[in-house]
Amino acid sequence: MEREQGSGEFVREPLGVAGRITAEESAPWPVAPGRYRLVGARACPWANRVIITRRLLGLEDAISLGIAGPLHDERSWRFHLDPGNVDPVLGIEYLREAYEKAVPGYDDGVTVPAMVDVASGKVATNDYAALERDLSTEWREFHRDGAPDLWPDAGEIDRIGEGIFDDVNNGVYKCGFAGTQDAYDRAYRALWDRLDALSGHLSDRRYLVGDTITQADIRLWVTLVRFDAAYHGHFKANRHKLTELPVLWAYARDLFQTPGFGDTIDFEQVKQHYYGVHTSINPTGIVPDGPDPSGWLTPHGRDELGGRPFGDGTPPGPPPGNERVPPLT
Amino acid sequence: MEREQGSGEFVREPLGVAGRITAEESAPWPVAPGRYRLVGARACPWANRVIITRRLLGLEDAISLGIAGPLHDERSWRFHLDPGNVDPVLGIEYLREAYEKAVPGYDDGVTVPAMVDVASGKVATNDYAALERDLSTEWREFHRDGAPDLWPDAGEIDRIGEGIFDDVNNGVYKCGFAGTQDAYDRAYRALWDRLDALSGHLSDRRYLVGDTITQADIRLWVTLVRFDAAYHGHFKANRHKLTELPVLWAYARDLFQTPGFGDTIDFEQVKQHYYGVHTSINPTGIVPDGPDPSGWLTPHGRDELGGRPFGDGTPPGPPPGNERVPPLT
Repeated sequence: MEREQGSGEFVREPLGVAGRITAEESAPWPVAPGRYRLVGARACPWANRVIITRRLLGLEDAISLGIAGPLHDERSWRFHLDPGNVDPVLGIEYLREAYEKAVPGYDDGVTVPAMVDVASGKVATNDYAALERDLSTEWREFHRDGAPDLWPDAGEIDRIGEGIFDDVNNGVYKCGFAGTQDAYDRAYRALWDRLDALSGHLSDRRYLVGDTITQADIRLWVTLVRFDAAYHGHFKANRHKLTELPVLWAYARDLFQTPGFGDTIDFEQVKQHYYGVHTSINPTGIVPDGPDPSGWLTPHGRDELGGRPFGDGTPPGPPPGNERVPPLT
Repeated sequence: MEREQGSGEFVREPLGVAGRITAEESAPWPVAPGRYRLVGARACPWANRVIITRRLLGLEDAISLGIAGPLHDERSWRFHLDPGNVDPVLGIEYLREAYEKAVPGYDDGVTVPAMVDVASGKVATNDYAALERDLSTEWREFHRDGAPDLWPDAGEIDRIGEGIFDDVNNGVYKCGFAGTQDAYDRAYRALWDRLDALSGHLSDRRYLVGDTITQADIRLWVTLVRFDAAYHGHFKANRHKLTELPVLWAYARDLFQTPGFGDTIDFEQVKQHYYGVHTSINPTGIVPDGPDPSGWLTPHGRDELGGRPFGDGTPPGPPPGNERVPPLT
């Protein structure tokens, strides 16, 4: 997802393979358990949205997970954490290979998340927003017992999600990849205005929409959880650290400690990716040893606000053994 | 003061004009009010040590102050904040000119602070450590009434100052200009071990040595005051922000609010210098809008620890009108 323009404002590229996987049997890409492999990366917030959604809905058995490592070469995401540097299911070294199978001569961005049709090796879609919605709606038959409703009020979730996308999810990239001081200043102001508004909104309610965890929370959280490790310093989103924003820091810790959120996070991979790959803004490639992440496990006190995290559902169990992330040190 | 090696550990260059200004009339550079101009820069911590010392001792009338601006070109420090880009007393555009007058063909670092003999236009010394000591001892005749004793226990001040120099003052540069991950990791560990030790030391006493402000406090403070604005993000000294370290943050605020300290600080110039000049680690030259500096003026509570800030002396008055820094916004 990370390209920069030569100058001025950072503009995110359109997605290269914006397909859908839907429940109709006759669909181009029909829902089918075991058919697709979700390729993500621990570093990437856009992949994280889909990985969390899959965890909360209990789709681990229906959709396997491949993890691209944090470091790129000029061919982008690759499976350098896997034995032999090859994804064990797809048998490829570079995610680009799956894009090229889907679109011969593929020349757009190689991004995660990507859902890959295992049999053909083709990317079915890299549209993270469609994916996270379709996992809730089209894949319902394969949800676990007790899976939560992540879209209780789709209109409100999309409404609040639009500002989160423009000013926060994408906003931190606009700060980091601004080509001029003016473009940076604008992005910085929009980011902090939005974070202040969200902080006000969350000061007396536990979640963004209604009283349960929804897709809106997932969208905001994937940026908050990376904020101090990557965006604060590397992207100059530095009015405050997350740890200095009482409401948002407690909100982010609450979700971190909720099954399906913190158990998808690997801070070392986040830092290795951002600081190691963006040589245009960190030419030395040196990866900071900070920040100290131990605060993520401290009490958050947000349960006093009430709320029913999973609504009428239940929390997911622990992740499958081969998807465990290292514990916080 | 800022050069980097091609690889590995950052090594600070020796000073190019390490002279002394002393009280004997026959000295090469004798103490004489009105004879010298101290050239500093608001950005630079090494200059800040001498600027604070001059303020506390009330030497503003005896030694005038020139301020190089935060931005360099390939000729290093220059007077781009002054009308016509020329220092109004020395009549030069680049500080390099005063070094070249002192040492024909001068090829070492052009650094601040530099004490310049106004009549000849030559740098008398750029040895900040000798300067700060000589201002206390050799210039005593010209101290203000109520000037404090900044060297009540020189042995202890030098002992504690050595660790502060290696691991903190210079340590943040070793983090920022490390040429390898290993060199960075070593510098980071030494920095945080030292800050933790200093924090322990200051947890139940107001100042580093004895119960008054000494040169040791000045040395530590010039790095602390720049920590969040420059070193935390730009130099990757990011285990915590200063604002997250309760003892050191209160200690730094206490001194910020003491006449002679905070009134020498211009955070905008600090940020413009570090982010604008070190293109090897910030190639875009974009200057962060954060951090929010408003916390510097909040109550620090350190007076409960007792202490006599100026010992048997008194605080200095406000700075001369032409040396005022902008108020915090």
